[in-house]
Amino acid sequence: MTKAKVAINGYGTIGKRVADAVMLQDDMEIIGIAKTRPNFETVMAQDKGYPVYTLADRVGSMEEAGIEVAGTVEEMVEAADVVVDCTPGKVGVTNKELYEKAGIKAIWQGGEAHELAGCSFNAETNYEEALGKDFVRVVSCNTTGLCRVLSPLNNEFGVKKARITLMRRSADPNDIKHGPINAIVPNPIKLPSHHGPDVKTVIPGIDVATTAVKLPTTLMHLHTINLELEKECTAEDVESILAEQSRVRFVGQGITSTAEIMELAKDLGRPRGDMWENCVWNESITMYEGELYFFQAIHQESDVIPENVDAIRAMMELESDGQKSIAETNAKMGI
Amino acid sequence: MTKAKVAINGYGTIGKRVADAVMLQDDMEIIGIAKTRPNFETVMAQDKGYPVYTLADRVGSMEEAGIEVAGTVEEMVEAADVVVDCTPGKVGVTNKELYEKAGIKAIWQGGEAHELAGCSFNAETNYEEALGKDFVRVVSCNTTGLCRVLSPLNNEFGVKKARITLMRRSADPNDIKHGPINAIVPNPIKLPSHHGPDVKTVIPGIDVATTAVKLPTTLMHLHTINLELEKECTAEDVESILAEQSRVRFVGQGITSTAEIMELAKDLGRPRGDMWENCVWNESITMYEGELYFFQAIHQESDVIPENVDAIRAMMELESDGQKSIAETNAKMGI
Repeated sequence: MTKAKVAINGYGTIGKRVADAVMLQDDMEIIGIAKTRPNFETVMAQDKGYPVYTLADRVGSMEEAGIEVAGTVEEMVEAADVVVDCTPGKVGVTNKELYEKAGIKAIWQGGEAHELAGCSFNAETNYEEALGKDFVRVVSCNTTGLCRVLSPLNNEFGVKKARITLMRRSADPNDIKHGPINAIVPNPIKLPSHHGPDVKTVIPGIDVATTAVKLPTTLMHLHTINLELEKECTAEDVESILAEQSRVRFVGQGITSTAEIMELAKDLGRPRGDMWENCVWNESITMYEGELYFFQAIHQESDVIPENVDAIRAMMELESDGQKSIAETNAKMGI
Repeated sequence: MTKAKVAINGYGTIGKRVADAVMLQDDMEIIGIAKTRPNFETVMAQDKGYPVYTLADRVGSMEEAGIEVAGTVEEMVEAADVVVDCTPGKVGVTNKELYEKAGIKAIWQGGEAHELAGCSFNAETNYEEALGKDFVRVVSCNTTGLCRVLSPLNNEFGVKKARITLMRRSADPNDIKHGPINAIVPNPIKLPSHHGPDVKTVIPGIDVATTAVKLPTTLMHLHTINLELEKECTAEDVESILAEQSRVRFVGQGITSTAEIMELAKDLGRPRGDMWENCVWNESITMYEGELYFFQAIHQESDVIPENVDAIRAMMELESDGQKSIAETNAKMGI
């Protein structure tokens, strides 16, 4: 079988993780990564054997820094079947023309608007919608985390109304520019937040209202989820549906915070200490006055990584069955 | 008029603030404060002229540290009309016998159970219930903050269902023992949290479900409030009801976080930088799909202080009209 040729445009938090996850699969390979600056991540990419591409006007500075440049971004794109655009939010949109000109498929991340790709993706929810598509957007870490639980619960019990408070980490662990250090930031102040509408790009018609704050933490997001369901059910019914989800992990056993979840990921030997699954405290799953409540934590740096792999597989029609793609991705990554 | 004689048992975060607020009033005065250890707060109390009392077995260590001891806690209690118990949570309960024996009135804080006093107090909600009472509990900072908005909105529009996420500061600014430093802690994991039932001790029969987390911040709590109301109304209607509340302050004008609220309090010249009012982002007040949403921040160290003053006034029957007491307390404190 010829492997799908995957290029990574933007080799930061998401890009480097997608590259490594792609290389673990049998049906796809990395043909190059693009980076604009010769930092430690660029050196690491080269050391791993990923051909390093850059912008035409950056070749000189890359070579001066000792990076062997494989070519320009345009050349990388020409050589690929599909590019995963992991450039910063709102930058990816400027690359669309390049991809269209080269006639290759492209995946954007959740920082871009739904309209850019026309297809917003979560493997468990709408894999089949992405089959053969040229352009797909893998939704953000928070939206991915929400779709993974809302979609199966909606299918099983019908979600009449979802009310969710998103408590967001305000910077990634490697980020020294952003805050707050010691404050709670309602963001946006104007309610509701954009996360609800973003969920609707994947699960059309679901009634979901979200509020969000930014917090002085770098580790994970945390969601408080309140659902009114159409069908009567117990907390145990909900727990057994969530238990069936391969990308939902129950936490307990002394795990009382996002910090202990990150410790667990390291103890599991996960690359970069990543936690690809939603972490739901199954003890928190409660029916109270007829409504469902639970807490889940989301690792912002890594939960979208398996979703990107599945998106590639769907767009390249390497597998027509979403559940089979999810199982394959999980098996190769070790989920 | 003879002033009500007030003793403060426990001179920490809350006790020292209540003492200062009482001294600003015309109808009550501090006759002593009790402290178990000779730390900087004890020295400050003495410097301010508050007679310092202590436990019988601590007199020696106090005097060794240069504190002039006015007498034992028993003697302080004998000399008072009402004691405000500001000892740490679950310690106050052990003092009840002492107060009963001395035949004086006592106020506990929200760390104690409702049953200890039998009357849980929020001035705006149930001042009249505390008139002449011997024992009253001023509810916690979070419950006080919730009662201040739920009570008037319930009176005006009827609260059909309240769903609230409490994002709690996990330590006070002077606290070097507690965490987390960099994590989100769902607490309690088992839902719903105890805050809802605590609100019901002040507003009986209200339907309120709360979830809570602890956060790596010391400044203030933040509440996401979602209400279903009985009567149809607009965001503007809600805003005008909240605007009438003397202990609710609207924030905006570049205030995007709890940190900026604390800066405002300092700029206002407030003692210790305290913010006695609920801080509601009026821009956040939204009706969305028929439900009300808004954000408010609560200064955990100080929002209960004016409530303690009003509780004294009610219990001592210095004023029978709650609104008049609130106005008097506010005027003297500068709210």
